[in-house]
Order: sequence, then structure tokens, then C-alpha cells
Amino acid sequence: LQKLGKADETRDAAFEELVANFTKQMNEGGKLQKDLKSYMAAVKAMHDASRRLQDCLADMYEPDWFGKEELDALVEDTDTLWLSYHQNLTDKSLLCMDTYLAQFPEIKSRIAKRERKLVDFDSARHHFASLQKGKKKDEAKIAKAEEDLGRAQKIFEELNVELQDELPTLWDSRVGVYVSTFQSLAGHQESFHKEMSKLSQNLNDIMTKLEEQRQINEEAN
Amino acid sequence: LQKLGKADETRDAAFEELVANFTKQMNEGGKLQKDLKSYMAAVKAMHDASRRLQDCLADMYEPDWFGKEELDALVEDTDTLWLSYHQNLTDKSLLCMDTYLAQFPEIKSRIAKRERKLVDFDSARHHFASLQKGKKKDEAKIAKAEEDLGRAQKIFEELNVELQDELPTLWDSRVGVYVSTFQSLAGHQESFHKEMSKLSQNLNDIMTKLEEQRQINEEAN
Repeated sequence: LQKLGKADETRDAAFEELVANFTKQMNEGGKLQKDLKSYMAAVKAMHDASRRLQDCLADMYEPDWFGKEELDALVEDTDTLWLSYHQNLTDKSLLCMDTYLAQFPEIKSRIAKRERKLVDFDSARHHFASLQKGKKKDEAKIAKAEEDLGRAQKIFEELNVELQDELPTLWDSRVGVYVSTFQSLAGHQESFHKEMSKLSQNLNDIMTKLEEQRQINEEAN
Repeated sequence: LQKLGKADETRDAAFEELVANFTKQMNEGGKLQKDLKSYMAAVKAMHDASRRLQDCLADMYEPDWFGKEELDALVEDTDTLWLSYHQNLTDKSLLCMDTYLAQFPEIKSRIAKRERKLVDFDSARHHFASLQKGKKKDEAKIAKAEEDLGRAQKIFEELNVELQDELPTLWDSRVGVYVSTFQSLAGHQESFHKEMSKLSQNLNDIMTKLEEQRQINEEAN
């Protein structure tokens, strides 16, 4: 291929940086989505284990023990809190990531297309240049090659300009996406843990009542 | 075997109830220990998943973004909180259950021994009665059988009295064990979730700062 001019080389190095950022951004997003999904699977598993442990207490709890009704209500409230935490994460953080990541495959294929069109453009330029330098000049062929070169350049430039415009915007958008994903996560976490702390306090209170009953019974015997 | 008298029958029915309670109590305890262990495995798994998710954010977080140091500190604090929650559950609830459950095998084997000694006692009583009812009375044999019967009764009664004394006490002790297991669990849960809620608020604050920086940069461009 013909050697590109100084300007072309600079422009291409700048574009390579855009592509490097794009790849980094896509990988980061994929990793984040994967880690979010694992976190949610762990939330689900801890919900199940917590439910089983509370059910175990509720099953052992005899009907005449103080706080039986409160305990049954607490088991349901705890279950509801876990469910809504999981649902909120799915509806907000995970869907936000899905929408964000859905943009990448189309842009990735346009980057690959630009690469192919650059090869076409270079090859048309090379062809035109070699015809011009040739000893027997066929003007018709040269005109045809120039026309082809113009077309190849136009196709490449259009894709190039589009991507040079879009990639930096996409790159900048990651900050907002991370902010909204983790802000939403942190917000749901904050209220989940706050409510869970209150429910734990309730469980503590029920146990205190049961202990009081136990001591009354002990003194009576 | 010889039919037991009315008093023996009543006494045995009462003992069967003690044994039924013992078995129920042992199964409940085993189930609780199992559910506690599963809960702790789930705590461990959610800790790991939460750590990976926060590490993912920390890895993406560029050094010149607002709040980088606060975020790194937050990741460590969150990790420490999870670790100490898990450790507290191990040290308190789980060890308390282990100690409680360790009593059961020895008592279970004494219940089985009492059962065998009851068979011996009944068989000695049967032997003695049939000698007494026999046509040709061998006084030496009868005296020997009476002595054996007395020994068999003594061995049985000792085990029986011990167990009749211990089983109701053990049965009553379950309430205190459930109280202390779940009170300790609820106490650790309460403070864990409370602290976790604060750390989530911190993460929210860091994200708000990052968003402010993003908006400043956007306006500058």
C-alpha cells in the first residue's frame, strides 16, 4: 500500500486511540454487567437462605410462645423486603446497563466496516497513482481510476467522520452511566439495609419477649 | 414379656413422650444448625459478589475522577464490615448451636441403654414369676432369680430416674437456646445492616460528586 501522508498518519493514530477507548469501554461495561448479575444471583441466594432460617425459627416457635404472630408477620415482611430489593435492582441498574451495552455491537461493526473501507480507499489511491506514473498513459483508465478513488474516499470519509463524532461522545457517556448505575444501586442498598436493620431490631424485640416468658415460667416452676 | 402393671404402663407412656420431645428437639436443633450454616455460606457468597462489584467500579474509576480516594477507602470499609459480620455469626450463633447439639448423642445413647435395661428387667421379672408359679419350687433358683431381678431393676431405675430428671430440663432449655441464637443473630444483623446502610449512603455521595464533576466538564466543553 502507498505510504500515507503525515496528516493521514496523525489522523489514524488519533482514531486508533478512539478505538482503544471504545474497546476498553465495551469490556468495562461487559464486566460491570457480569458482576451486577453475579451480585443479584448472590442477593437471591442470601434471600433464600435467610428465608429458610427464619422459617426454621417460625416452625419451631410454639403457638403459645409470646410473639408468635409478630414473628410470622416479620417473616413475611423480611421476605417482601428481599423481593423488592432484588426487583428494584433488576428494573433499574440491570436494565440501564442492558440499554447502554446494546449500542456497542452496531458501533463495533461500523468500526470494522471503516477499516475495510480504508483498505479499499488505499487500494484505489495506489491504483490511481500507479496508472499516473505509468509510461503508457491510458487517459480513460486514469479517469475511471480517479472516479473510483473519489467514490472510495467518500465512502470512507463518511464513516470516518461519523465515528470520529460518535466515539468521543460515547466514551464520555460512560461516566454518566456508571454514576446512574451505582447511584441507583447505592440508593436501593441504603434503604434495603436501613429497613433490614429495623426488621432485625423487631426480631430482637420478639426474642426479648420470649425470654421474659421463659423466665416467668421458670420462676413459676 | 409379662404384662406391666397399670402404674408401669402410665410411667412408660410419660417416658415415651419425653423421648418424642427429645427426638423433636434434636431434629429441630440439627435443622437450625444446617440452616445457620447455609445462611453463613450465603453471607460469604454475597460478600464475595459485593466485593467484586465494588472492585469493578474501583478499577474503572480513573485517578482524576472526584472521589477516587473515598471510593478506595469505602471498598475496604465494606469488605471489613462483611468480614466481621461473618466472623461474629461464627463466634456467637454457630458456636452456641455446636455446644448445645454436642449434648444430644450422649443422652441418645443413654436412652437406648435404658431401653435395653428395661428389656433385661422385664425378662428377669418374667423369669422370677414363672419360677414362683412353677409346680416344683426350687428355692435356691428362686432366690437367685429374685436377686437378679433386684439388680436388673436397680440398673434400670437408676438410668430411668436420671433421664426422667434430665430430659424435661433439656427440653425446657431449647427456648433459651433459640432465644440466645436468634437474639445474637438479630443483634449482629441489626448493626451490620445499619453500618451497610451508611456505607451505601457514602457510595451515593461519591457518585453525586462524580456527577457534579461530569456536569462541570460538560459545560466547559
